[in-house]
This record gives sequence, C-alpha cells and structure tokens, in this order.
Amino acid sequence: MRDTFGSILRVGIVGYGNLGKGVELAIKQNPDMELVAVFTRRQPSDIGSEAQVVSITEMENFKDKIDVMVLCGGSSQDLPEQVLEVSKLFNTVDSFDTHAKIPEYFAKVDENTKAHNTLSLISTGWDPGLFSLARLIGQSVLPEGEDYTFWGKGLSQGHSDAVRRVAGVKGGVQYTIPIDNALERVRSGENPELTTAEKHQRVCYIVPEEGADLSEIETAIKTMPHYFADYETIVNFISEEELKAEHSTMPHGGIVFRSGKTGNGTKQRIEFSLALESNPEFTASVLVAYTRAVGKMAKQGQTGARTVLDVPLAYLSSKSDEELRRTLL
Amino acid sequence: MRDTFGSILRVGIVGYGNLGKGVELAIKQNPDMELVAVFTRRQPSDIGSEAQVVSITEMENFKDKIDVMVLCGGSSQDLPEQVLEVSKLFNTVDSFDTHAKIPEYFAKVDENTKAHNTLSLISTGWDPGLFSLARLIGQSVLPEGEDYTFWGKGLSQGHSDAVRRVAGVKGGVQYTIPIDNALERVRSGENPELTTAEKHQRVCYIVPEEGADLSEIETAIKTMPHYFADYETIVNFISEEELKAEHSTMPHGGIVFRSGKTGNGTKQRIEFSLALESNPEFTASVLVAYTRAVGKMAKQGQTGARTVLDVPLAYLSSKSDEELRRTLL
Ligand SMILES: NC(=O)c1ccc[n+]([C@@H]2O[C@H](COP(=O)([O-])OP(=O)(O)OC[C@H]3O[C@@H](n4cnc5c(N)ncnc54)[C@H](OP(=O)(O)O)[C@@H]3O)[C@@H](O)[C@H]2O)c1
Ligand SMILES: NC(=O)c1ccc[n+]([C@@H]2O[C@H](COP(=O)([O-])OP(=O)(O)OC[C@H]3O[C@@H](n4cnc5c(N)ncnc54)[C@H](OP(=O)(O)O)[C@@H]3O)[C@@H](O)[C@H]2O)c1
Repeated sequence: MRDTFGSILRVGIVGYGNLGKGVELAIKQNPDMELVAVFTRRQPSDIGSEAQVVSITEMENFKDKIDVMVLCGGSSQDLPEQVLEVSKLFNTVDSFDTHAKIPEYFAKVDENTKAHNTLSLISTGWDPGLFSLARLIGQSVLPEGEDYTFWGKGLSQGHSDAVRRVAGVKGGVQYTIPIDNALERVRSGENPELTTAEKHQRVCYIVPEEGADLSEIETAIKTMPHYFADYETIVNFISEEELKAEHSTMPHGGIVFRSGKTGNGTKQRIEFSLALESNPEFTASVLVAYTRAVGKMAKQGQTGARTVLDVPLAYLSSKSDEELRRTLL
Repeated sequence: MRDTFGSILRVGIVGYGNLGKGVELAIKQNPDMELVAVFTRRQPSDIGSEAQVVSITEMENFKDKIDVMVLCGGSSQDLPEQVLEVSKLFNTVDSFDTHAKIPEYFAKVDENTKAHNTLSLISTGWDPGLFSLARLIGQSVLPEGEDYTFWGKGLSQGHSDAVRRVAGVKGGVQYTIPIDNALERVRSGENPELTTAEKHQRVCYIVPEEGADLSEIETAIKTMPHYFADYETIVNFISEEELKAEHSTMPHGGIVFRSGKTGNGTKQRIEFSLALESNPEFTASVLVAYTRAVGKMAKQGQTGARTVLDVPLAYLSSKSDEELRRTLL
C-alpha cells in the first residue's frame, strides 16, 4: 500500500454521523486531499453525502484506492470493533475518547496494525488530542506545577441524555460551564486543589411535558447522583420552540492550564483554550490534520499504533519544512 | 559520542547570562539530568555558578563528558558564531530568535552538524518556540482563518535600551501591553486586520536626570521613529528607588490566536497564552525540555539541524510512552 501515495492524499470516511459529516466538510478546506468514499452500515442510498457512499461490507474493494481511513464511529460501541477490522486493510485515524480504556485500545491496535503492515493514529480530536499536547508541554516545561482542565462552555451529550430521561421532561440540554471564581484562583497562581465539581457549573434548559410538576423535575435533576448531585446545578424551563431555536447547536471548548514555578518561586503560567461553535466540526478538522500526518508517516514505511504525542507537528501541515521555518519561527 | 548516553543526561551550559543562570536552575528541577559544567568567555573565577565553571577555550576536554550543550549566548552576536564552533564537538540546543535570519542560520547549522555527526535543535524558547507550535497547530487544524500574536504584558529589552538612550534619561524600562479592545475584537471572531501598533500599547517608566526637561523627554520618546512613533505610548516619570523596587524583574508573555471557520461559517477559536514572571527563567525551562528531546534523538543516531516543529512532543518528557498515554490522553 505504501507505494500508492500520490501527491493528493486519498481519504475514506467510515461512519456518517456528526463527525463523519464534519470530516467531509474539513477535507474540502484542504486541497491536498480528496474524499474517495464514505462507508456506512446503513443503506448507502439513505446517506446524504456529496461523496460516493458505499456499504461498509464492500470496503475491501477500495484497498488500493484509499491511503487513510478516518474512523467516525462512536467510541463506546463502534470504534473498538471497527478499528480492528479497518486497520487490517487501511491506515486509520480515530477519535477514541474513552479515556480509561485507551491503554488497552492502543495495545490491541498496535498488535493488529503491526501484523497487517498498517499505521493507526488513535484518540485524536481536542480531548483527547490537542488538550493532551497542551498537558504534555506544560508538564515538561514546568515540572514543578499543577495541571488544571476546565471544560465548557459546552453542550454535554451524556448529561443532556440524563436530563431527558427524567420523568416529566419532554426535551432538554445541559451545558457545562467553568466557574469564574475557580478560573481566577488558578490564574492567580495560588495552585488550589479543585474537584471537577468545584470547577464547573451545570446549567439545564428543560422543556416539561404538559402538566408536569416543575419543582419535582428540578429536584429530580439536582439530586441525580454522579451527574448533578455534587454540582452547582441550575435548571431553566423553556418552550419547545426556544429549545429548537437556541439550543440545537453543539458548542464546546475548555481550557488546559499549567501553573508552575521556576527558580526560587517565580510564577509561570501556560494556558491553552478552545472556544468552539461546533464540537464535531472542530474535532473533524483535527482528525483531518492528523490524517495528513498519518499519510506522511505511512509513506515513510511506519507501521503500528501511534498517538498525537508521537507526531512531529510539522507533519500536520501541507506546507514544506522550509516554508514553516520561514513563517512560523 | 552516541554511545556515551547514560541514564542521566549530561548537560553543559555555554554562556552565563540571564538564560545560562535560568538553565542551571531548570536542570535542578529535572532529576534525569545533571549539569556537568558552565563554559564562559570571562574569567571562570568571576562566575557565580554552583557548577564547575570552565573557560570556553577548554571545551574540547569535555567531548566525552557531555551529551548536550545548551547555548545561552545572545542571538545577535554570540550564537551565530558559537553554534558552529560548539556543534563541531557536541549536540546543541539554542534559542536563536532573530526571526528573519532563521532560515540562513538553520542551513549553516545543518551543514556543520551533518559534517560532524552531531545534532542541533535551534530557535526554541517561547517565541520562537512554543508560540511557533501554537501557530502550526492553528493553521493546520483551521486552514481557513487568521493568526494573531499579541506580546505582553512584558518588559521589552530593545525598547528599554532605546528609552535609556534619550537625552535627560537616567534609567527606565518599557512594557509592551496588548490593547484590550483589540483582544476583544479578535475573540469576537470578526477577524479584523490589525497592525502591530494597533494591537499593542507601550508604557515607559522613566527616571529623569536632575533638572531634565520632562516634556522634552516625553516628546523625544513618543516621536522616536520605528520604536514609538506609530504606537499609543504612555510615559510615566518615577524615582530611582521606585525603578529598582518595582521594575527590576523581567516579566513577559503573550497570546497566539487562530480564529477560523469550519463547515458553513462555524466560528472556532484556538488560544495559547503565557503569563511569565520571568522571561529568561521560562525560556530556560523550555530549552531544558528540548535538551532532553535532543538527547533522545541523538541517541537514535539523528544528526543535522532541527527545530521545534520536527520533534514529537513525547520526547520532551521524562516519562515513558505508556505513562504518558495513560495520564495525558
Ligand atoms: N477526541 C475528541 O476530542 C472527541 C470529540 C468529540 C467526539 N469524539 C468521539 O467521536 C465519536 C463520534 O461522535 P459523533 O457525534 O459523530 O457520533 P454519532 O453522530 O452518534 O455517529 C456515530 C455513528 O453512528 C451512526 N449514525 C450516525 N447517525 C445515525 C443515524 N441517524 N441513524 C443511525 N445511525 C447513525 C454512524 O455510523 P453508520 O454511518 O455506519 O451508521 C456514525 O459513525 C464519539 O463517540 C466521541 O467518542 C471525540
Ligand atoms: N526564543 C525565545 O523565546 C527567547 C526568549 C528570551 C531570550 N532569547 C534569546 O536568548 C538570548 C540570551 O539572552 P540573555 O538574557 O541570557 O542574554 P545576556 O544575559 O545578555 O547573556 C548573553 C551572554 O552575555 C555574556 N554575559 C552575560 N552577563 C554578562 C556580564 N555581566 N558581563 C559580561 N558578559 C556577560 C554571557 O556569555 P559569557 O558567559 O561567555 O561571558 C552570556 O552568554 C537573547 O539574545 C535572546 O535572543 C530567546
């Protein structure tokens, strides 16, 4: 497969959900790549992509036509299975984000890709992904210090699902929002100890069913263990129209801090933050930049599993090393 | 030289100014390294380091005793000469920051190191250095967008020197400060066109000589071409005691933005910022993290010139790849 890389990188998408759609859009912003086909488990004719849509069962026919496959399945069910199947035939990139299972996932992918002479970069996106890079830089440059990650303001999928399961709730969303006072304490350099609950507020927008008891809904949400009980939680009731008009996009973001000391107590702070109007479109854009890197590394003959921590950042760019040195340093 | 790397990386410092002192302090925070010697052009007995201090003319005697040399000379006069001498014998790291001359510097170092089988990483620190990484990530992930760099709040060495040359000025410093309104416009996602002068304010603290005409000094500063004439400049007069008490440290920092769009106009923003109480101590800490990377790359047998854009970030860390994946992803 290694010898088939041309000047235009040939890319495939596996799975056409939010991320798959985002990858299709992101490839259009990168003229050194082309989207060859979208692969789906559903009826191809049901998929509204501008590209050729193919049943996932026919993937093998594309073995010599695609350089890198971008895996856009869900982390909990799809990716652990799909990555092992697809990486038998193709180099892959994915955004596997079940943090606790990453070591096991890496080991399986590493074994599989080495056996099949392919290369797979796992767990990219923004967290894991760019936030992991920020943490690594922070810890390496300021070994004496503390890490802080704040998420939001952003829509949390898991918590939105949880509020929608509450009796009397017709629809709703939940936003995770960093608490200003906690941000200020971190920025001041006092290096406070902060739990996730002390760093974040949870704000819900709920459409109640007709005749539902609002105070019962509010209590049920605020006392829900794990999800809300430990947090400062705010419940707002809104209409169905308002939910549609104001809360149908998927913003997210967050901040990674490293607050450390050098010399004799000199305070130094590194801050990396993202403000994203669309979480899946941004994640897709990160995936596509790493797709380019995988193309370059596979062309060199590399095989096995990799993460963002292993990739020289110049590989993310379509520009030459000379141009990067001249314009970025 | 390649085979001599032990489990503790043996480091030398060339030049003992602000940066050299910072590197000595930073090495103490990294137990996987030891400082073998400081090399200076001055009388070794005049240098107040805790380490062994040696005349730069005796460097050759340390050929098998040092794995990586950290070059801490000044960019304008020292480094272009020293890097070619030192990298004949040793792997090196430096913070060469004359942006326009980096391509030429890289080419010379690349040729020299290849001829002598050594490895040199040039131009690390924060700008060039970490800010270059932030720009590269931003441009690669959001190809449709704009870059913005703001410097400060920080002490500018060049501009402080310039105010001190004004007639009637006994002492003084200049701070570069980002203009809030410009920051807000960038954060709003409007992608404004902004010159350096539209992004920064220059604030001077001046100790006048006795009997000097303050308004003449102020006018001389504010109308100084290149340095101040195009900028919003504020001149404050202070006493010598105040200058010493409040303005003798070297804070700096800044922000690199990438403000881009994905899909059909979705706004996405990446922000990387530094708030540094000491510019040289922080720069030294970055140099030391890249010293570790050079140690690893040289051990692999790599030779030639490199920049921060070429280094997998995992190389900056003393931790194993397994631990990094488990804790950072
Ligand atoms: N690392 C990071 O920073 C980061 C950030 C965001 C998300 N993620 C990860 O990305 C994963 C994918 O996110 P996503 O938002 O794209 O998930 P999603 O929209 O639920 O899509 C997941 C899969 O479900 C199928 N699907 C999508 N829409 C469907 C529909 N209407 N009916 C039936 N099946 C449908 C698609 O496969 P078929 O086409 O084969 O049916 C798709 O590949 C998440 O699990 C998350 O772990 C990572
Ligand atoms: N990339 C970045 O982000 C970044 C950030 C900050 C600085 N820098 C660069 O780092 C360079 C070095 O900065 P620095 O603040 O360390 O400069 P510095 O204090 O002026 O030191 C430069 C050299 O001058 C000599 N020296 C120092 N103090 C002296 C004294 N009292 N009398 C005589 N000679 C003395 C030392 O060499 P000897 O010991 O051999 O005499 C030293 O190596 C700057 O030129 C700048 O370009 C880069």
